Amino acid sequence: MDIEIIAVGGYDEVGRNMTAVRCGKEIVIFDMGLRLDQVMIHEDAELENMHSLDLIKIKAIPDDTMMNSIEGTVKAIVCSHGHLDHIGAIPKLAHRYNAPIIATPYTTELIRQQISGEQKFGVNNKLFALKSGQRYTLSQNLVLEFVRNQHSIIDTVTPVLHTPHGAIVYALDFKLDRTPVIGEPPDFARFRQIGKEGVLALIVECTNIGRKGRCPSERIARDLVRDTITSYEDDKNALVVSTFSSHISRVKTIAECAHEIGRKPVLLGRSMEKYAVTAEQMKLVSFPETTSVFGNRRTVDRTLRRMMKAGKDKFLPIVTGHQGEPGSILTRMATGDTPYQLGKGDKVIFSANVIPNPMNHGQRYMVEARLKMLGVRIFEDLHVSGHGYREDHFEFLQLLQPQHVIPAHGSLTMTADYTQFAGELGYTAHSTVHLLRNGQRVKIN
Amino acid sequence: MDIEIIAVGGYDEVGRNMTAVRCGKEIVIFDMGLRLDQVMIHEDAELENMHSLDLIKIKAIPDDTMMNSIEGTVKAIVCSHGHLDHIGAIPKLAHRYNAPIIATPYTTELIRQQISGEQKFGVNNKLFALKSGQRYTLSQNLVLEFVRNQHSIIDTVTPVLHTPHGAIVYALDFKLDRTPVIGEPPDFARFRQIGKEGVLALIVECTNIGRKGRCPSERIARDLVRDTITSYEDDKNALVVSTFSSHISRVKTIAECAHEIGRKPVLLGRSMEKYAVTAEQMKLVSFPETTSVFGNRRTVDRTLRRMMKAGKDKFLPIVTGHQGEPGSILTRMATGDTPYQLGKGDKVIFSANVIPNPMNHGQRYMVEARLKMLGVRIFEDLHVSGHGYREDHFEFLQLLQPQHVIPAHGSLTMTADYTQFAGELGYTAHSTVHLLRNGQRVKIN
Amino acid sequence: MDIEIIAVGGYDEVGRNMTAVRCGKEIVIFDMGLRLDQVMIHEDAELENMHSLDLIKIKAIPDDTMMNSIEGTVKAIVCSHGHLDHIGAIPKLAHRYNAPIIATPYTTELIRQQISGEQKFGVNNKLFALKSGQRYTLSQNLVLEFVRNQHSIIDTVTPVLHTPHGAIVYALDFKLDRTPVIGEPPDFARFRQIGKEGVLALIVECTNIGRKGRCPSERIARDLVRDTITSYEDDKNALVVSTFSSHISRVKTIAECAHEIGRKPVLLGRSMEKYAVTAEQMKLVSFPETTSVFGNRRTVDRTLRRMMKAGKDKFLPIVTGHQGEPGSILTRMATGDTPYQLGKGDKVIFSANVIPNPMNHGQRYMVEARLKMLGVRIFEDLHVSGHGYREDHFEFLQLLQPQHVIPAHGSLTMTADYTQFAGELGYTAHSTVHLLRNGQRVKIN
Amino acid sequence: MDIEIIAVGGYDEVGRNMTAVRCGKEIVIFDMGLRLDQVMIHEDAELENMHSLDLIKIKAIPDDTMMNSIEGTVKAIVCSHGHLDHIGAIPKLAHRYNAPIIATPYTTELIRQQISGEQKFGVNNKLFALKSGQRYTLSQNLVLEFVRNQHSIIDTVTPVLHTPHGAIVYALDFKLDRTPVIGEPPDFARFRQIGKEGVLALIVECTNIGRKGRCPSERIARDLVRDTITSYEDDKNALVVSTFSSHISRVKTIAECAHEIGRKPVLLGRSMEKYAVTAEQMKLVSFPETTSVFGNRRTVDRTLRRMMKAGKDKFLPIVTGHQGEPGSILTRMATGDTPYQLGKGDKVIFSANVIPNPMNHGQRYMVEARLKMLGVRIFEDLHVSGHGYREDHFEFLQLLQPQHVIPAHGSLTMTADYTQFAGELGYTAHSTVHLLRNGQRVKIN
Repeated sequence: MDIEIIAVGGYDEVGRNMTAVRCGKEIVIFDMGLRLDQVMIHEDAELENMHSLDLIKIKAIPDDTMMNSIEGTVKAIVCSHGHLDHIGAIPKLAHRYNAPIIATPYTTELIRQQISGEQKFGVNNKLFALKSGQRYTLSQNLVLEFVRNQHSIIDTVTPVLHTPHGAIVYALDFKLDRTPVIGEPPDFARFRQIGKEGVLALIVECTNIGRKGRCPSERIARDLVRDTITSYEDDKNALVVSTFSSHISRVKTIAECAHEIGRKPVLLGRSMEKYAVTAEQMKLVSFPETTSVFGNRRTVDRTLRRMMKAGKDKFLPIVTGHQGEPGSILTRMATGDTPYQLGKGDKVIFSANVIPNPMNHGQRYMVEARLKMLGVRIFEDLHVSGHGYREDHFEFLQLLQPQHVIPAHGSLTMTADYTQFAGELGYTAHSTVHLLRNGQRVKIN
Repeated sequence: MDIEIIAVGGYDEVGRNMTAVRCGKEIVIFDMGLRLDQVMIHEDAELENMHSLDLIKIKAIPDDTMMNSIEGTVKAIVCSHGHLDHIGAIPKLAHRYNAPIIATPYTTELIRQQISGEQKFGVNNKLFALKSGQRYTLSQNLVLEFVRNQHSIIDTVTPVLHTPHGAIVYALDFKLDRTPVIGEPPDFARFRQIGKEGVLALIVECTNIGRKGRCPSERIARDLVRDTITSYEDDKNALVVSTFSSHISRVKTIAECAHEIGRKPVLLGRSMEKYAVTAEQMKLVSFPETTSVFGNRRTVDRTLRRMMKAGKDKFLPIVTGHQGEPGSILTRMATGDTPYQLGKGDKVIFSANVIPNPMNHGQRYMVEARLKMLGVRIFEDLHVSGHGYREDHFEFLQLLQPQHVIPAHGSLTMTADYTQFAGELGYTAHSTVHLLRNGQRVKIN
Repeated sequence: MDIEIIAVGGYDEVGRNMTAVRCGKEIVIFDMGLRLDQVMIHEDAELENMHSLDLIKIKAIPDDTMMNSIEGTVKAIVCSHGHLDHIGAIPKLAHRYNAPIIATPYTTELIRQQISGEQKFGVNNKLFALKSGQRYTLSQNLVLEFVRNQHSIIDTVTPVLHTPHGAIVYALDFKLDRTPVIGEPPDFARFRQIGKEGVLALIVECTNIGRKGRCPSERIARDLVRDTITSYEDDKNALVVSTFSSHISRVKTIAECAHEIGRKPVLLGRSMEKYAVTAEQMKLVSFPETTSVFGNRRTVDRTLRRMMKAGKDKFLPIVTGHQGEPGSILTRMATGDTPYQLGKGDKVIFSANVIPNPMNHGQRYMVEARLKMLGVRIFEDLHVSGHGYREDHFEFLQLLQPQHVIPAHGSLTMTADYTQFAGELGYTAHSTVHLLRNGQRVKIN
Repeated sequence: MDIEIIAVGGYDEVGRNMTAVRCGKEIVIFDMGLRLDQVMIHEDAELENMHSLDLIKIKAIPDDTMMNSIEGTVKAIVCSHGHLDHIGAIPKLAHRYNAPIIATPYTTELIRQQISGEQKFGVNNKLFALKSGQRYTLSQNLVLEFVRNQHSIIDTVTPVLHTPHGAIVYALDFKLDRTPVIGEPPDFARFRQIGKEGVLALIVECTNIGRKGRCPSERIARDLVRDTITSYEDDKNALVVSTFSSHISRVKTIAECAHEIGRKPVLLGRSMEKYAVTAEQMKLVSFPETTSVFGNRRTVDRTLRRMMKAGKDKFLPIVTGHQGEPGSILTRMATGDTPYQLGKGDKVIFSANVIPNPMNHGQRYMVEARLKMLGVRIFEDLHVSGHGYREDHFEFLQLLQPQHVIPAHGSLTMTADYTQFAGELGYTAHSTVHLLRNGQRVKIN
């Protein structure tokens, strides 16, 4: 049985991830993601109504037309976690494959919602929720296992495909967080055991391979956020925090800090509502009981008016808009386009980095410039990454001892950087570490 | 007679320049400029219809309300050159002063056009065109002289106000270009002579005080542009160049290079038309006879269609849009929103820097990303600055030997940098070099 | 009684701090510091043997010759904490003043050692140890108070000089750390009270005015260090940490983490010994009992040989050399110049930033390049600053409500940045916020 | 006959270039270079006395031990130009091969001098000077041709190996300069013709692949230097220029500018003498007749004393030390360690970039800091690169139309960047564009 790794998307860029693994005549697809910044460049693009071929043309989703030339049957579409660069193209591509979509419960629920918003295609693939730690038999030869891992969204796993020739580990995305805020640390014991049993190939993200040392634990982000918010215990001014709405651990941290200083946490914004309510309903998180959530614009504005009236010092709004997105709540606050008036001494906290892209820097600059003109005090980067750094990768390689490594989820500069790193540890380019581009494939035995 | 320098605008930012000089009971105002990036932040701002007080509030024009507290009569409003950060607030502020506006002929013409576009205020100040090298008697005590200088717009002068206590030199903006493309070099001999006669105060721009060495001559920009354009003599692909439409020397250079390789230069865009046609009609520049100019959108698009039909290799469009401005011709070309199709191997040349501001970086990134997706080859930064560097300032101080120096046209960081520089040359903060903020004033005798 | 602030050193640079305050005929001097990078530039400089005038010439110590022109009697030399940029010039300058040196106990002890190493001058000033929270009557008019504060060295205070016209607060250096690792948080209550009683002037450091938000607590650094070190609990390779030897909190953190994973902490290096042993003998810190300390080169090398023999996994050396200083222990380890062999999989942790200066970057690069060639894994920047950020300054101003502010300890760019910041909060340049250069003075009533 | 490209050195770094091409049983080696920054890291390294294996270990020269496993006979060692990263390892490695060294006349002479300085090995390979434009028959199957090109050293060629399967072009290093200062432009016609005849493989440098647009012509550097130097025609202060001593075009430019303003050019420093005198004796350059050259320290210092006496305004010293190298003449001038005193108003011009490496930045910072303390005015970066930019590579690919491309002379990040660039133009990774690491090889038919 020959085994082949097929690089469909995410090998020339950060975003629109998709990798296929062919074992003999059977194929497993990992992830079908979106590349959001490409959508931004095409300002007129209306995602929901666009055809997949148009989205492929603007490089917003993986070009899976190459799959036509791969002989074999797709047995499953497996998603490692619920971020859009991993599940966002499912509404556009999954219907082409007669195969179930397998993901953890939370990810499954997000995929379901994603599909239901689609206007162009009817997606009828079966959705199967596999829990972290569980296995699923795909065929006589192939067994899928979900190994617990950590990332900046809950219920993230590292899918492992057990084949007769050894395991194939799909490690997009992960961080080796020993002290996470929600959930357990990565299952180091299981990874080590899989390593001992034999890993044929590791497909691995490399977004942070350029950063030295280890990625700090989410616990550090919690401490940073707490350090700042609790410094304003006696402050009468507004405290507004913006963060990634899919980052449930962070939202929980912020809500708890609000609670700690006697303010009611109020989650505002459509996506804020989507991720938080879903997580809460699935009992994956519990927020302080004083927490409330409002999604649609009318109720958001009504709530903002109410807070204004009751006193800004009684609440801590947690809002969308950390990248300065036009139309987000923070942007609307900054332009005076809500009933919530920001002014002198009010505080706005960004518990997020600026996603590195000049468009985001431009938008963020605008929102900050407007906030400053109102006299608002600004706090930035109370944040840690959700992606392992160079020494996390070092540890991960030590645990798994893979025969082959395929760096993924990055521009060629990043995957080349990973290749150089692997080279320093004894891997050989073209032979045991494989630098692929979108549309390329490599046989590994 | 006591003399006072009043910092109205441009002392806390790059942009919205305005300085008043009071000599006894007589006042001369230098420049009334706009700050364009502040307008960008307020996307909804419609300049022509806005009231000056609203523009002051968003820091887009100088806050000249402080002038009410200055005792004296305004004798003249003097503009050093035609850039918007020096003349752009005239339609909003000049009518408050019963005084003529004095500027060089080209600048005067630009001011006239500026005023005629104003919707909100009626501006009836007399416009007086004073040529470089000439003098104008303002009163018994005050004589205004225009000394020839160089900058990135033609007909730039350094106004000098002769007072009974010595000359006051207003050096915003300038570069000591010994080999300019249009016009004569700065009048070094006259500056040296004025220095010997005695300069009481030098008010001086400091936008490039942080850059070491000398600002390269515009001749270098010409060589850079020529070096690139003539490399494509035999190329059949499109060559499109974008540059500052007010930079007549540069536009001339580009047009001549086009001519040299047998392509017809075609200037496109409303502002491109405004500056070029005005300059040509005033006989301040002559373009190759094959040059044509089109300003309004309908004729621009008709011309683009015509070029497409006749062959892209026969023309060299010189267009607006080097900062990626939405709606500019280059942006429209990049989004396929014109009849002129860009494709593989076509070349786009930016003969401009990115004006340092995250919003511009974001917009420029977007237009370049779109051009690259079309297969266009991109050339950047074929450009030199129009503002003197540190060693130009050194030379200028040596020439003028002023008793007092007032750095202007910069953020406090820049004016402080100039102060440090002046300190190294023997000036003393608070005593002979004065670090002012908007709204501050200093007496200098 | 007129009051004057005299900027002697540290107003044009980071380093060589010295400020004098004259109240009528009485003068109090705050700090006499060294500028180490100037010494580095003059590689041949042998500090101990140099005359103060030569050190003034190369700008390594404050130019206090200006003090000759100040009329009045120096009543005290007051040092806020024990860093060299605050006490390092005492051996060169203090003997010129007939006045006691007043500092906290730990700082006093460091000054004593500093003086005893001096070869050129005999310094006989009385040394007086004043505890944090205590007061000292300098004269009928002047009372000195030490208010508890936090910084990157223990026993740091903010000296407050009570005058008949209000308090003068000398806030060099500080961070508003609510959860310090050693000692109590700053005495917020007392600062607020002093603010209410009336602060005439705040002299304030501004090294981090350019950084947004708040400076993270030392607790965060502890978490970062712990996060990394404890990840290697089962590792058999070497773990070596380098940090600032004067940063006792950090050294304690590292020693405790070593202890936690079962390794004996071994402090190595002359300065490591000096600061740690002094602190321990004064009962200001207690390290885990397994900790040992070795200062001079012979015993250091003997210890390194012993560790090598016993097993690198039994110890955690805490060493000098985080800036790649030639001759430091880490540099010697990297060049194979000690009995301690570093090799594949060994780990070196920098719990320090690179002090921003191209010379340090060059040296640090060299030591890292050598470590990497040995196969060493590198961890950087497990560190937080000891200087308040912009929002700490905001809070500090809110607490103290000073009438006048004098930014200090920074280049003109930094002090100008602080001035702009103060301006946004309502202070006025030249009137209530004073931008001084070395050698300048300002009267404040 | 199978053809293989063997990446020996320069594929993981900038420096120590060496590539072997095997055609059946015959091998041609291109370049044997040194990596100077690795020598800098090992400060104690004494190049002349070191064994090749030690130099290989510290990665200072290519690891050619892999050549043992290549079956075939080395027919020639070919050097493209005389920079040390292309010829510097010849004294250490060439004697292992029984083959002549072939290079252009100037390069040959530099190699001869290089060999004569070697202490450790006896190198007896025949040296053969082949002129640009000429051919050399290596064997029945192989013909070597030198095609004229441009770079930052004179007499640079692009060696082309004609094989039965097509040409193999070794394009390290080059710039497509249409208006060079010395010599003719690259032989575009011949390159185009070779392209038409069929290029099997292009081995190509990629140091500047990351820079957009075209590399400016050396003519631009001349204009920049002239623009600055001639601005000081009437200046009585010193003018000192430092540049790359091997950059004969630049040295000529500087000498001519000196002459133009009536100053005698004086070349100072051992390497300055070596390159200039060699070039002049070979009639490859002529300097103004007032030019003089001094190499060894004693005569240099005597000359400096003489200039000091006669008047600094009569001479323009062109000196070594643009990277702040310890012991260079500029460094000695800055530390006052020569009879030539620099002071207020004197000018030092760096006609060189800082070679990007933190060690150079550190040393350069030190020398500039010292110069500034003396009151010297500093001019930087009057320089253009000698390596083609991205659009030069685009043009070169258009000319040659190679079947295979092998990016060389760069870190993996750079070669990966080139691969991405080639991919955009239709090349396919692993198939027609080959990303090699040191020690790897690829068959190309």
